Amino acid sequence: MAEGLIANRLALIGIGLIGSSIARAARERGLVREIVVQTRSPATLERAKELGLGDHYTLDMAEAAKDADVVIASVPVGASEEVAKAIAPALKAGAIVSDVGSVKMSVVRQMAPHLPSSVHFVPAHPIAGTEHSGPDAGLADLYVNRWCILTPLPDTDPAAVEKLSALWRGMGANVETMTPEHHDLVLAITSHVPHLIAYNIVGTAQHLGEVTKSEVIQYSAGGFRDFTRIAASDPTMWRDIFLHNKDAVLEMLGRFSEDLTALQRMIRYGDGNGLFDLFTRTRAIRRSIIDKGQDAPEADFGRHKIAAKAET
Amino acid sequence: MAEGLIANRLALIGIGLIGSSIARAARERGLVREIVVQTRSPATLERAKELGLGDHYTLDMAEAAKDADVVIASVPVGASEEVAKAIAPALKAGAIVSDVGSVKMSVVRQMAPHLPSSVHFVPAHPIAGTEHSGPDAGLADLYVNRWCILTPLPDTDPAAVEKLSALWRGMGANVETMTPEHHDLVLAITSHVPHLIAYNIVGTAQHLGEVTKSEVIQYSAGGFRDFTRIAASDPTMWRDIFLHNKDAVLEMLGRFSEDLTALQRMIRYGDGNGLFDLFTRTRAIRRSIIDKGQDAPEADFGRHKIAAKAET
Repeated sequence: MAEGLIANRLALIGIGLIGSSIARAARERGLVREIVVQTRSPATLERAKELGLGDHYTLDMAEAAKDADVVIASVPVGASEEVAKAIAPALKAGAIVSDVGSVKMSVVRQMAPHLPSSVHFVPAHPIAGTEHSGPDAGLADLYVNRWCILTPLPDTDPAAVEKLSALWRGMGANVETMTPEHHDLVLAITSHVPHLIAYNIVGTAQHLGEVTKSEVIQYSAGGFRDFTRIAASDPTMWRDIFLHNKDAVLEMLGRFSEDLTALQRMIRYGDGNGLFDLFTRTRAIRRSIIDKGQDAPEADFGRHKIAAKAET
Repeated sequence: MAEGLIANRLALIGIGLIGSSIARAARERGLVREIVVQTRSPATLERAKELGLGDHYTLDMAEAAKDADVVIASVPVGASEEVAKAIAPALKAGAIVSDVGSVKMSVVRQMAPHLPSSVHFVPAHPIAGTEHSGPDAGLADLYVNRWCILTPLPDTDPAAVEKLSALWRGMGANVETMTPEHHDLVLAITSHVPHLIAYNIVGTAQHLGEVTKSEVIQYSAGGFRDFTRIAASDPTMWRDIFLHNKDAVLEMLGRFSEDLTALQRMIRYGDGNGLFDLFTRTRAIRRSIIDKGQDAPEADFGRHKIAAKAET
């Protein structure tokens, strides 16, 4: 699957789950000659070294960006402007600057004004991840069969867009292009609002008086535990996502609440047919997601196998 | 782990995911001598025969219940009264009658008045399942390390409660006892409201104008797909749960909506600290669920392994 060498020097600003997965994938698939790893925390940098994620290591963003052909920032969305400011003076002409943020309009607003016109800015967002964080959480196959959305600006050089696409395809991803505006709307409904309601139900369960916390935990296999996975995602990353995609999130949340009120009314007035109709329609979308390879068909995510193993 | 023979003849009224998992577990672990399988649908009964789930097969509930030591109804909650009426005349003295419904107050109201005083009624609810339905979906290890809640009435014979407990423990479950009222409150927050909001977000995503259905499916790995699993559960079963646990569901839903409004307000006014605090607290509950063996610690439910396999 590897498409051969795509760039000489790749600089990774931030080496958490996403950045370290890029490091592992790019290395394993021979997509780049050298990887420079940068992070602000000395302890994390030390850990990245122990894991052998790069060839050069530094705490300094400008130093990391110097001589890089491709720079990818994998930092919380709110830190994007700071990264752009720091790397701008060090970038070589013709370099590609990209990111992995879950919000795109805000990243463009934060980064574009600081980058020199001699570099190519191609914002990107791989739709992949797990609930774990940090350099140890990275996986070389995290992007396989997942989608990566690029949101280049109208005047971006097509060759630069193609080069970044090739890098993502090389890591196993499918690549799609759209505007930052449309990206932010699509992600609000497919990712941001789902995370918000998962955080919310877990929060509601935590401060009940009549039902104890240990009961919630004990009986979570009834459905609740599915929500706790995404409600365990990195708090800083998600705080920034909600603050930086405010308009689209509030819009989609408004529709969600409207629909939930209608559903609540069906329950109150005993509208069994209305409930049955909705529950039948929602089944179909699950099948489509499995058909398109975006989820596993194993019952209960294959958890019963883990339970059975635990017994023996 | 098998605790030996617990009953001679077990009658299963309904042979879907839950009933057929009981059949498989009881057989594999030698907990009963004979299993009688009953279902209303001739096609399903035929399939149960092909799968070899029982020793006797019938479409008639009374015939199934005759001579049984333990009768377990695994039917949608709304069908409970019909089952009680049908089996009551056929039950032998001393038989244990139980069920697996996700709502307990309503099941007690529907069944207790019809059962003769010569039998022991012990309502039960195993907190286990998958998103699949029907006799093929059953798993012999579905109940291993899961909880089964019994809600006996105050005057129920303790020996009958112990016998049913032994049957569930024999299938690998942990058994807990509580009142039907408390059960219904606990399940409203750990199962019923989570299912309702999962159905709801999938519904909201289906009728967006700006974002197409195929985009929702394509980019579902961002969080949305976790919800589609439980929103693919059996529609009849879930319609009945919401109609029969109305009060507790409306109460918990009210609290969920209140909390969501507060969260929405934090986003609107940019309260980053408030968001960060909640997102940090919710992480802890996930860890407890994994520590208590009620979920798997594998990142992303181990989905990346499935994705990687798909590539090769």
